[in-house]
Amino acid sequence: MLPMLRRVSFAVNKARPTAQTFNTPTYTSGRRGSAVSAMVQDKDPFKPAQRVAGQRQDVWSIVNEAAQASPVQPIVNMGQGFFGYNPPQFVLDAAHEALGKVECNQYSPTKGRPRLKKAIADAYSSSFGRTLNPETEVTVTTGANEGMLSAFMGFLEPGDEVIVFEPFFDQYISNIEMPGGKVVYVPLHPPANGASETTSASEWTVDLAELESKITPRTRMIVINTPHNPVGKVFSRDELQAIGDLCVKHNILILSDEVYDRLYYVPFTRIATLSPEIAALTLTVGSAGKLFYATGWRVGYLIGPEHLIKYVAAAHTRICFSSVSPLQEATAVAFEQAEKRGFWEESKAEMKGKLDRFNEVWDELGLPYSIPEGGYFVLVNLSKVQLPADYPFPPHVASRPRDFKLSWFCIKELGVAAIPPTEFFTDANAHTVEDWLRFAVCKPDEVLEQAKERLRGLRKYIK
Amino acid sequence: MLPMLRRVSFAVNKARPTAQTFNTPTYTSGRRGSAVSAMVQDKDPFKPAQRVAGQRQDVWSIVNEAAQASPVQPIVNMGQGFFGYNPPQFVLDAAHEALGKVECNQYSPTKGRPRLKKAIADAYSSSFGRTLNPETEVTVTTGANEGMLSAFMGFLEPGDEVIVFEPFFDQYISNIEMPGGKVVYVPLHPPANGASETTSASEWTVDLAELESKITPRTRMIVINTPHNPVGKVFSRDELQAIGDLCVKHNILILSDEVYDRLYYVPFTRIATLSPEIAALTLTVGSAGKLFYATGWRVGYLIGPEHLIKYVAAAHTRICFSSVSPLQEATAVAFEQAEKRGFWEESKAEMKGKLDRFNEVWDELGLPYSIPEGGYFVLVNLSKVQLPADYPFPPHVASRPRDFKLSWFCIKELGVAAIPPTEFFTDANAHTVEDWLRFAVCKPDEVLEQAKERLRGLRKYIK
Repeated sequence: MLPMLRRVSFAVNKARPTAQTFNTPTYTSGRRGSAVSAMVQDKDPFKPAQRVAGQRQDVWSIVNEAAQASPVQPIVNMGQGFFGYNPPQFVLDAAHEALGKVECNQYSPTKGRPRLKKAIADAYSSSFGRTLNPETEVTVTTGANEGMLSAFMGFLEPGDEVIVFEPFFDQYISNIEMPGGKVVYVPLHPPANGASETTSASEWTVDLAELESKITPRTRMIVINTPHNPVGKVFSRDELQAIGDLCVKHNILILSDEVYDRLYYVPFTRIATLSPEIAALTLTVGSAGKLFYATGWRVGYLIGPEHLIKYVAAAHTRICFSSVSPLQEATAVAFEQAEKRGFWEESKAEMKGKLDRFNEVWDELGLPYSIPEGGYFVLVNLSKVQLPADYPFPPHVASRPRDFKLSWFCIKELGVAAIPPTEFFTDANAHTVEDWLRFAVCKPDEVLEQAKERLRGLRKYIK
Repeated sequence: MLPMLRRVSFAVNKARPTAQTFNTPTYTSGRRGSAVSAMVQDKDPFKPAQRVAGQRQDVWSIVNEAAQASPVQPIVNMGQGFFGYNPPQFVLDAAHEALGKVECNQYSPTKGRPRLKKAIADAYSSSFGRTLNPETEVTVTTGANEGMLSAFMGFLEPGDEVIVFEPFFDQYISNIEMPGGKVVYVPLHPPANGASETTSASEWTVDLAELESKITPRTRMIVINTPHNPVGKVFSRDELQAIGDLCVKHNILILSDEVYDRLYYVPFTRIATLSPEIAALTLTVGSAGKLFYATGWRVGYLIGPEHLIKYVAAAHTRICFSSVSPLQEATAVAFEQAEKRGFWEESKAEMKGKLDRFNEVWDELGLPYSIPEGGYFVLVNLSKVQLPADYPFPPHVASRPRDFKLSWFCIKELGVAAIPPTEFFTDANAHTVEDWLRFAVCKPDEVLEQAKERLRGLRKYIK
């Protein structure tokens, strides 16, 4: 059908790459893509842009590779925060129906399907305390992740600073760096007695003086995450008011990642509701994937005032053009029906039940943990676990903080995967969580029971 | 359930925005986001990044708004290139099946689902003349659009130049500008007699000397599009060889947008197959949305050597993290079954039939057009159409080239929407296509017949 490849003969110019010599150059960089040592050459066509040159193996790859190679199979994977079950049937039904409609299989408007924008505005108006305008105050993105990138792309010029709390969701960092932004870190301080007793996620605290000390004339945005991943903290109204006041004082945009906003077990406040001044500065991020057990659907959204949303939408148009149509339509139906079906209360009660069920094993073992106030992650302190002195960790794990070793050990010896949280800290502050592991409980109850049974194997290593 | 909004009282600092004063500032810019006239203020938190500040109304909005306001309803929309029918049943069936699987509703690997990467490698190996490695030479993206952005993000440093042929698919421009790249335009020259007689899309030509004259030490990439949108040209083997040789000579990466690569009506060549040297520099872009009539599914992919694909994938991870899972799975099945079901031949024959069917009306009317060699767009020359001298065009149309007026007139008077192609040119070269309109024929046959019937209404305006 296609013409045969013709045999070409060409003189090889020594100055250019040839089929024989175009080996991939090796680019190395420090943490989070800094210095690039490039091939010394007139012009190297294969040299990557600095923004993607960092190639340190990420935590997800390390954990997944270890999980695949574990002698205990199948592994119980409580690492990545994907759901171990399907979206609810009424949401799946809506997806099936959407696939049958021509317009639901073709391009959606770049800002999102009108039905979905309206459904989001309707679902969020009560918790925003005002009627949201679906045409101007909501925009749909390809997952919350690309939504946050769109916000950074919409407002950051190279060199602008963005304040991020540690621990952070790791994608924030590259998303800020893509448009040339500079991340400024402010730690959440862990509970002082977190190694000896079970504490509340509320005991991870912000030092407001420390926060304000990091603000400079280049500070353009701050990222908040509540309920927080991985800490499980729900920021209190007073904390949010104080942060919001600082932002108003210093003219700082607030990007509030609230993707777990239906999973809170203490009172939950949206920073956008605290005052008109704060609202004017705030973009709130949501995720249909997190709400409806469908992390692979890539339907996210941002809510905020028109003067901010319009530029997020403009950036999104330039990044993805538009987002996935049939699953936007299904998400619209999901939002339309969730309240009357009692789904919000049901999903919250179910997830709280999973957290309580799972955490029983730590009480049994006498290992302290941080009781989550929201979301579906639990941080457990394993300082009492004594790893065998001669345990053969591979070099790429041995060189990392103790939590990487704990994670590796649990995968290999017990068959349970969890995430080492130092990955979510800068090197300077990583030591504060080197005894902790993060477990995701958004898994079927029988999987949680199996995990507990396996984790009881830790008993003999507890000193 | 949520705490009541507390009534806040705060002192209004005159230097900051307040609920009363935070009107959206007006940012204006020239064509494609250049100068930004910002609010003069100490620090304006609402000022957008320059990359999104341009707000000239785009062609899609103008045409869609006109279509909605046309007295002839429903409009026959041959503007945007979405399909007027569903994906084939075997592809829809695969999507339904995927929705039932837990793992197909959750995150996919950032480079794409292994089954899809393998299906793409298998489907493309024959036309690449070698066996593609699905793990290293294929990466999945959120539509071809985000795939091209990932390529630019993976390789462009600020100030790097990218050569783009005019006319261009308009998203290229913002995608190049997002990472700070500079677009360098090289025109395709239209057939000299295109206004008087029907010509072949092959008569749109590249002047190679002109192309080489635009290459500088900063030239980092070139974008090729074959089959070409909107021209319908399939670049010949000789043209591609000459372009490829220039790229090898000057160490320029080739981004070959081949999203219509199953819709060619003359022999089709992939530039990546012309020599190992050219292959080493080439990223080939594909789109499941274009192949399987599902522009809203947002499943695209890039194929190329590992030393290029790895950085595209790294950029994609930082942009979208991962792409839509259930529709990736459905696309895998689509690729697995397309050949044996005869879908490739069928879809090509069907689209060629639609082009021939639709173009009959231009032969009837004696209006010359450019016969497409591939894809599903046709450019028609309407220089013989005399628009009424006193026709009331609105200011935002009256100020644009004649093709915008032709488009507006056809929408309002005839009820048929088409795209004015000067949008795909720089201002300097727009005049070369101001008598042309672009029609998308990927619509049901009865819609094409209705369009033809309406377009016969042009007869009385032909001089």
